[in-house]
Amino acid sequence: MKYAAFTLSGQPSTVRVGEISADGSAVLELDLGVDVSESGVVAILNAQRAGKLPAGHAARHALSDVRLLAPIPRPRRNVFCVGKNYFEHAREFAGSGFDTSVTKPGDDIPTDPIIFTKVPECVIAPGAPIGIPSDVSTAIDYEAELAVIIGEGGRRIPESQAMAHVWGYAIVNDVTARDWQHRHKQWHMGKSFDSFCPMGPWVVTADACNGQDTTVRCWVNGELRQNASTRDLIFKIPKLIATISAGMTLLPGDIIATGTPVGVGIGFKPPRYLVPGDRVRIAIEGIGEIENPCEAS
Amino acid sequence: MKYAAFTLSGQPSTVRVGEISADGSAVLELDLGVDVSESGVVAILNAQRAGKLPAGHAARHALSDVRLLAPIPRPRRNVFCVGKNYFEHAREFAGSGFDTSVTKPGDDIPTDPIIFTKVPECVIAPGAPIGIPSDVSTAIDYEAELAVIIGEGGRRIPESQAMAHVWGYAIVNDVTARDWQHRHKQWHMGKSFDSFCPMGPWVVTADACNGQDTTVRCWVNGELRQNASTRDLIFKIPKLIATISAGMTLLPGDIIATGTPVGVGIGFKPPRYLVPGDRVRIAIEGIGEIENPCEAS
Repeated sequence: MKYAAFTLSGQPSTVRVGEISADGSAVLELDLGVDVSESGVVAILNAQRAGKLPAGHAARHALSDVRLLAPIPRPRRNVFCVGKNYFEHAREFAGSGFDTSVTKPGDDIPTDPIIFTKVPECVIAPGAPIGIPSDVSTAIDYEAELAVIIGEGGRRIPESQAMAHVWGYAIVNDVTARDWQHRHKQWHMGKSFDSFCPMGPWVVTADACNGQDTTVRCWVNGELRQNASTRDLIFKIPKLIATISAGMTLLPGDIIATGTPVGVGIGFKPPRYLVPGDRVRIAIEGIGEIENPCEAS
Repeated sequence: MKYAAFTLSGQPSTVRVGEISADGSAVLELDLGVDVSESGVVAILNAQRAGKLPAGHAARHALSDVRLLAPIPRPRRNVFCVGKNYFEHAREFAGSGFDTSVTKPGDDIPTDPIIFTKVPECVIAPGAPIGIPSDVSTAIDYEAELAVIIGEGGRRIPESQAMAHVWGYAIVNDVTARDWQHRHKQWHMGKSFDSFCPMGPWVVTADACNGQDTTVRCWVNGELRQNASTRDLIFKIPKLIATISAGMTLLPGDIIATGTPVGVGIGFKPPRYLVPGDRVRIAIEGIGEIENPCEAS
């Protein structure tokens, strides 16, 4: 199932949720009787968990008539993100000189998952502009990523049971100000500028997508920059879930962006940063695609 | 003014907010007509901003009759924290061997603010136990800190206007699993174990406390371990607010823990980590004090 959050053109302030029809042409709206403006499709998850998912649909809207939002417009807490989780990307990042986590030779490939966060308020919708504040950063970069959406939460989730905690998947662009990431050592600020987390186009439930074996691709202005398989993740999804939940309780609706493959702007010599007018498109097989323009902010 | 969140013993599930009486003996409850179970005293801030703060009090409770909660029981997003923001602590941390941000000689004193986060759900009340999961970490440490609570939010807040964005102050214990902080390079997980953010005992508004010139002290089992002045912050509060808000919009109720002074457990040789049965007490002049026991979890 594909679950989306959206608005209708006549009522842009009312956030709705629904499922994408089998043929992909329509959104079948679900009336959950709750405000979904922040939780988005997590309200569907919560209804499922409570056994209160409506059997029928409140309305049918042509997909072309709705404006898709990020499926979780305002996550309940920061988005978890994984750093350096593809071998070739870890090498390109180490080679870029921007990686302050490399303290000795051989450090380019992490031995343990690297986890940081992005603030919930930097999540933006498909099509919404990625802001480029050139007075604040001159090194803004894209990162195409598969995001895992947690269903049932838990602490000390063993790897062997971790996949049962995955509700679904979405696409995230982990936009990054490389100069801030480097200068401030911890990555949080450089990852959390306003608009730095395009997310979408919807959440595909785990039964309909194999997140452990799918393809992540990213184009900038139509030029293919990233093209990899999630089979090549250094730390696989079960390992990520087990690690994050070892000391802290994971919660329903938590988002874990699993890391980006080789091909980011910093990997080129000279680097190819995002500038106003650029368009970043990301496609993940089994999910769909998301495109966002860049504009001065 | 001191604003607190609390419950009454007969109704432990109803979160209330109020102001501490001038003589410190009572809590004067404010009925804001909204659910304050997550926002706590941020609901008072919001009422002030909307010009809807009630003139009178709904009830008066002896302080000894209430159970204080963290003043913001569940922050709307992760708590911002500053790393290595006192000179002597930066040196003790670099000397401990746990600091992966030191990549070359001289790196022990940061040249730019280091910002990371703790999940909102690790916030706990005064008196609530700090969990010590010995199967997960054998290196859990305390960090006494002054926390700034943002009033009016904003982006690109200049240093010269930053103090006008400070609503008040609270005490935070930035509890840290040192082994996780070191092993995983980015500090988020080692800072976010369940219960790793004792906060309290209330928020003191900025007119009643000079956060830029106050004393932070911490005792473990009655032994004074930390004793410093916020005058010695490497990056002062205006610099922190200006830096964080350069690329991302700060929001009302955001919490910025400003860093810990010298004297943490890792600074001793051998290190003195927290174990079940320990009690950590933190006092900040002008605010009050908070004490939390440690227990196995």
